[in-house]
Amino acid sequence: MGFRPDLENKESMSNVYAVIMAGGSGTRFWPASREMRPKQLLEFRAGEASLLAATVERLLPLVPASHQYVVTAARLGAETEAAVPGLPAAQVLREPAPRNTAPCVAWATWEILARDPDARIMVLPSDHVIERPEAFRAVLEEALAGADLGRLTTVGIVPTRPETGYGYIEVGAPLEKSVHEVARFVEKPDLGRAQEYVASGKYLWNAGMFFFRAKDMEAAVRAHLPEVAKGLDAIRENPASLPDVFPTLTSISVDHGVMEKAGNLAVVKGDFGWNDVGSWQSAWELAAKDAHGNALPEGGVAIDATGNLVRRLTSDPSPKMVALVGVHDLVVVDTGDALLVMPRERAQDVRLVVEALKAQTPKRFL
Amino acid sequence: MGFRPDLENKESMSNVYAVIMAGGSGTRFWPASREMRPKQLLEFRAGEASLLAATVERLLPLVPASHQYVVTAARLGAETEAAVPGLPAAQVLREPAPRNTAPCVAWATWEILARDPDARIMVLPSDHVIERPEAFRAVLEEALAGADLGRLTTVGIVPTRPETGYGYIEVGAPLEKSVHEVARFVEKPDLGRAQEYVASGKYLWNAGMFFFRAKDMEAAVRAHLPEVAKGLDAIRENPASLPDVFPTLTSISVDHGVMEKAGNLAVVKGDFGWNDVGSWQSAWELAAKDAHGNALPEGGVAIDATGNLVRRLTSDPSPKMVALVGVHDLVVVDTGDALLVMPRERAQDVRLVVEALKAQTPKRFL
Repeated sequence: MGFRPDLENKESMSNVYAVIMAGGSGTRFWPASREMRPKQLLEFRAGEASLLAATVERLLPLVPASHQYVVTAARLGAETEAAVPGLPAAQVLREPAPRNTAPCVAWATWEILARDPDARIMVLPSDHVIERPEAFRAVLEEALAGADLGRLTTVGIVPTRPETGYGYIEVGAPLEKSVHEVARFVEKPDLGRAQEYVASGKYLWNAGMFFFRAKDMEAAVRAHLPEVAKGLDAIRENPASLPDVFPTLTSISVDHGVMEKAGNLAVVKGDFGWNDVGSWQSAWELAAKDAHGNALPEGGVAIDATGNLVRRLTSDPSPKMVALVGVHDLVVVDTGDALLVMPRERAQDVRLVVEALKAQTPKRFL
Repeated sequence: MGFRPDLENKESMSNVYAVIMAGGSGTRFWPASREMRPKQLLEFRAGEASLLAATVERLLPLVPASHQYVVTAARLGAETEAAVPGLPAAQVLREPAPRNTAPCVAWATWEILARDPDARIMVLPSDHVIERPEAFRAVLEEALAGADLGRLTTVGIVPTRPETGYGYIEVGAPLEKSVHEVARFVEKPDLGRAQEYVASGKYLWNAGMFFFRAKDMEAAVRAHLPEVAKGLDAIRENPASLPDVFPTLTSISVDHGVMEKAGNLAVVKGDFGWNDVGSWQSAWELAAKDAHGNALPEGGVAIDATGNLVRRLTSDPSPKMVALVGVHDLVVVDTGDALLVMPRERAQDVRLVVEALKAQTPKRFL
């Protein structure tokens, strides 16, 4: 598990808490992902844990289970608790309604503050793959150093391609150690600008990771989203009001609602084999493949076939023989109750299927 | 069902028997066809009967169930009986070993002769599709007229393309009504000759259908395959000897063993929407398709997808959503325990998969 016995100052980690955001309901992995089985609850590599469970495990050398929180949607509460059996159930926070990430982060901050006024918090997505967990944990510690400076700190991923699907962070002046100022946040660029960003070496991908002292985030929310703060105060005073109050909170992202308005920002560079597993194309990239680029279930037969991803995701334990003949660069997903076949390069168009299914009556397979 | 009340001479049909050859164990429809579920036991159109059951039904207006025989392999006996519940079990003949079609036809002839010395027999394959059953039955009656002339008569299919996968029959001089002499049988030709044959208008496809008076076939077998006749005599004398004697009979086709040696041949032209369903390509041709040439299970979604055949063959009654995005001219077959994906034009290469499976240990999915 890569526990680091040389951790500089173990004592100083005792007030660190992790908040794992697991409310997503992505449709980009249909038919594997469903309304009741979103991406973070999927296992992307045969025999591995779900992305959420892997996220929890990856943090354990730094943050014990007793300090890890998961925020999810109320309707996914039971499935989420089942996916992380090592976490106390009380630390699986169930949002009565989706209000984007600012109320999510703020609510968790309020909850943790009530428990530990000196808390330092790392907010992390639940549905990313990280190839080098030790390097990842080292970066988390660097980012906590940014939080210790009183900065709302983010980790920016060193870009490996001119991706137009992510926001970018322009790195500013150095502050201390590896912590830098944030020059600015940039929305998803077009390809030309993305190429410039990557070539400049000054831009990082915004991966939705945030590090702060709980008090600093509380202050920022009070300053920039005062109605959210007021609602959370009311919930803290009367927890039974959660289902009534939470759905009324401003629906806004933590980037737009807090980070872009705050002055005390910082960023730390991250380079630890990050992949947000954004589509079946990413899943193929991450998969273990044979010499012909095929990722098939065990025992599968591929004849004159290259670059295919075949995934079978089902509770049925009996084996199924997959045979491909003369097909290339396809994604084939078999979930027992649904079967998807498409070229890898059309991976983004899974949404078209989901839209078609939403138009069907009765609604099924969603 | 197209029963023809105008049938010219109902009385004269009372000595007609059908022998349906159902011993095939084709691998060209893997994973739908298996060792224990050969092609003739498959349903090729949703909601329709198996090809074998459809063959029996198609004959009923001419030949009652009490006069229909099915010859199959011993190992397929139970499955075959189950597929044709309307037939007396004693009329499902189980070959102890496969000896090609001559012993099969001869054995059935011996069996029927013991019951009706004046029998006229039509031998038909069990695994073909016929689009126009009334036209088909009319041709059967024409072929019986050939048998009444003392001829071993066959039906030749009017060719619709220069197919190199079939044998051809050159039509000779007219005999009576639509019955003609056979000029010669021709083995599978190369493409050039197949094109000449089709252009000439003198050649028909050999579809493996035979019509004869039982006594004429008996005489032909005694003349051209005397050891087969001797073995069948022994079996008739002592039915218990079947498992010992049948496997010793000469393994040869009725074409090579009898027809090509006999002088008293005849042929009748057939044009009734015949299709031998030789591959998944044929299955696609036969399938009901949408405006984009897709044949999908009910409720399936096809987006920017054309010319695909998707078949789900399983005993699982629960629905399965099939979604295709951006794929063309594929065959996708899902049998619950196996999944095949290949281009239609590679349909013949299913045998490569079967060979690969035969090489696996343990042998499964065959």
